[in-house]
Amino acid sequence: MALLAGQTVVAQNVKKDSATLKTISNYILSNYDCYNDLRDLCKQIGHRISGSPQAEQAVLWGKKVLEQTGCDKVYLQEVMVPHWVRGEEQGMIINKKGMRSSIEISSLGNAVGTGPQGIEAPLLIINNIEQLQRMRPEEVKGKIVFFNYHFNQTNINTFESYGPCVYYRWGAPSEAAKMGASAVVIRSVSSAFDDKPHTGSMSYNKKYPAIPSVAISNLAADKLAKEINTQGAMRMYIRTTCEMLPDVKSYNVIAEITGSEIPNEIICFGGHLDSWDIGEGAHDDGAGVVQSIDVIRTFMKLGIKPKRTIRAILFMNEENGLRGGQKYAEEAARNKENHILAIESDAGGATPHGFSMTMSREQKAKIKSWLPLLLPYGIYDFTRDGGGADIGPLQRKFGTPVMELLPDSQRYFDMHHSANDVFENVHRRELCLGSVAMTAMVYLVSMYGL
Amino acid sequence: MALLAGQTVVAQNVKKDSATLKTISNYILSNYDCYNDLRDLCKQIGHRISGSPQAEQAVLWGKKVLEQTGCDKVYLQEVMVPHWVRGEEQGMIINKKGMRSSIEISSLGNAVGTGPQGIEAPLLIINNIEQLQRMRPEEVKGKIVFFNYHFNQTNINTFESYGPCVYYRWGAPSEAAKMGASAVVIRSVSSAFDDKPHTGSMSYNKKYPAIPSVAISNLAADKLAKEINTQGAMRMYIRTTCEMLPDVKSYNVIAEITGSEIPNEIICFGGHLDSWDIGEGAHDDGAGVVQSIDVIRTFMKLGIKPKRTIRAILFMNEENGLRGGQKYAEEAARNKENHILAIESDAGGATPHGFSMTMSREQKAKIKSWLPLLLPYGIYDFTRDGGGADIGPLQRKFGTPVMELLPDSQRYFDMHHSANDVFENVHRRELCLGSVAMTAMVYLVSMYGL
Repeated sequence: MALLAGQTVVAQNVKKDSATLKTISNYILSNYDCYNDLRDLCKQIGHRISGSPQAEQAVLWGKKVLEQTGCDKVYLQEVMVPHWVRGEEQGMIINKKGMRSSIEISSLGNAVGTGPQGIEAPLLIINNIEQLQRMRPEEVKGKIVFFNYHFNQTNINTFESYGPCVYYRWGAPSEAAKMGASAVVIRSVSSAFDDKPHTGSMSYNKKYPAIPSVAISNLAADKLAKEINTQGAMRMYIRTTCEMLPDVKSYNVIAEITGSEIPNEIICFGGHLDSWDIGEGAHDDGAGVVQSIDVIRTFMKLGIKPKRTIRAILFMNEENGLRGGQKYAEEAARNKENHILAIESDAGGATPHGFSMTMSREQKAKIKSWLPLLLPYGIYDFTRDGGGADIGPLQRKFGTPVMELLPDSQRYFDMHHSANDVFENVHRRELCLGSVAMTAMVYLVSMYGL
Repeated sequence: MALLAGQTVVAQNVKKDSATLKTISNYILSNYDCYNDLRDLCKQIGHRISGSPQAEQAVLWGKKVLEQTGCDKVYLQEVMVPHWVRGEEQGMIINKKGMRSSIEISSLGNAVGTGPQGIEAPLLIINNIEQLQRMRPEEVKGKIVFFNYHFNQTNINTFESYGPCVYYRWGAPSEAAKMGASAVVIRSVSSAFDDKPHTGSMSYNKKYPAIPSVAISNLAADKLAKEINTQGAMRMYIRTTCEMLPDVKSYNVIAEITGSEIPNEIICFGGHLDSWDIGEGAHDDGAGVVQSIDVIRTFMKLGIKPKRTIRAILFMNEENGLRGGQKYAEEAARNKENHILAIESDAGGATPHGFSMTMSREQKAKIKSWLPLLLPYGIYDFTRDGGGADIGPLQRKFGTPVMELLPDSQRYFDMHHSANDVFENVHRRELCLGSVAMTAMVYLVSMYGL
């Protein structure tokens, strides 16, 4: 019934909505404020891992930029976040003759360090977890396990290749520790054939020792695998001084425009302010941050008054803790807020194709009924389930309907979590189209509910 | 009736076709031969304007690569092409005080030169053709007309912005000549805000004098417009030695796999081998060339036997004459060939979204009935009319149904016809997805006709 009512309303207003969406699109593509914001975030602040001075600067920057939109409320939401620091890193490959050659390594986020002396041990190449599990512990004990698991290039959506690979970063190190390994090296979780290691979060299974874990680039992994296969046993030296420091105080940055008719129904949307501590966090997730800011700005600039409350959230600590997302859901519960939809943009700043959705069949049907309005902006794909990490706690706690913007995925994992995730690798018009899609979706839900 | 029969066949074979398309996609994404071909074409040969030694090398290269696929026939189709050479270029802006500052210029293709002494004259800034047409000839006479017409950033498909802009490159110079202008400078036909001039074809209306015509970059145009608006009248000096030499012999490169059941029905597809003489012609149209080669290679590698004849054409001289496309259609007429479909890829190597089509309603419906097979590869858009320049003569002569691959258009005109159209700006997976889409479409039509 709600669905049918919604469809009737849309049908009545299709011309007006179509014109509003075109006005939104024209404004964003002509002014590209989000692109200028991203340049500021990337170039004036740079990378910004939770707990770092840059993360603190990013909070103040986000608050300032949101305040400049003139929206109804901008506030900080306090949250304690982990404070992992990378420190120094050194890697060497040692061949049978004792010749040492350096190799660029990148500690995995949350990993322990090797201690100041480093670790030197024989390398054991493992192509997949099943191969490790078939081995006897004495074959693994004391060795540095090199997980050489490849990113599957045949998936059209690269996020489908990311999932299986990320296990080797997130969970496999403890499986190696269980077998007695002294450290883990992984092939980067990346679609690129280049010389940049890609970092990212890992976790330790507390039943087993926490062992140092690092990534090497895909080209370095290919070279190393070839050397091991042709020359036989190699040794490796790893020295990392990364460590987890005590939690520090940080913030989610929140801004809203109060609904003119049904203010207690909230549509929230966001990206995460923190990034990895290499590169500039441009696609991950500077893009989602500036697009979320752009939704608020565009409503304000164009004088669009949402019937329901719309709220942008710049989450802290998506990368190595998700504390911001958890905190937001806790506060929503404490304040008995009614979120009718949460949208995340955390899949990069490329040309958007659609939104993934986790919600009821009726809600999906309502969103899909807007396809004719969204198709002119290249938004056609509503086939995938999904939401996003930062809005996951809302979804799990309240069953809040969630969506995530789906940009083209071909380039994302080339840059993700690496030194290549910089402003120069985000395209102005593509980023803007993401803002258009987000603003259009927020507009429609703010007018017609869900 | 033909349509209904076609749909029945598809329905019966949907599982098999779906599996074949996945095999095609896996092969292309795993081997990315087209990307390696593009590297060779761009880095070993480079740019290759019609009549140049590089164009000759490109013909031999294309023939060799196609022969290596082991397909049934590879042959050259002789065609006489224009031979325009750029020569030297020098541009200077002269302010009221006589201060001279250099400005990078790029002669428009087919333009005449200034003669060795160059031209110095007052600059007249014109924002659009209507403004010129409202002027009196004495206001224009002897001046260098600066067309500062802007690329419309608000269109989602950038090809819609290209059309109106390109008039200022193609036709407006003669309108200025008609009013007595001594030369024309145009703002680059480009979506980028950068310092690279973009060249491209122009034509002269024979009723008026042929005057030198050059492009400047968009940043240079902005700077110049601002200076004129704040400081008043400026002068410009242009020296270009470009010229049109006598026609030279060149070739289309053609390769085919003969149909196993209905060999006289031909599906042809292609891109153009020639490029502008700056950059590397990577997107325009190295991409279309290597994708067309890839269709033939993929059929051969996978042992797919098309029921109808499939034919790749690497056209010569799309950029400044279209002689290759015209010659191909003439030969098709002479040989009484029956082309049931022609497909062009000449819109860059980005992620493909669909195909434009000019054909009957029934034929369009048949193509659209394959949407479920193509959607997994991101191919959803069949809403646009269109074909391509090189297959235009076939369409006009025989009414041949034509299609063009539609890649994402956001970045294309940033690089198009400029020094930025280089291999490094083509993405491996995106280029491969274009090959997948082309091969899939050729496969379906080769099996089910049109």
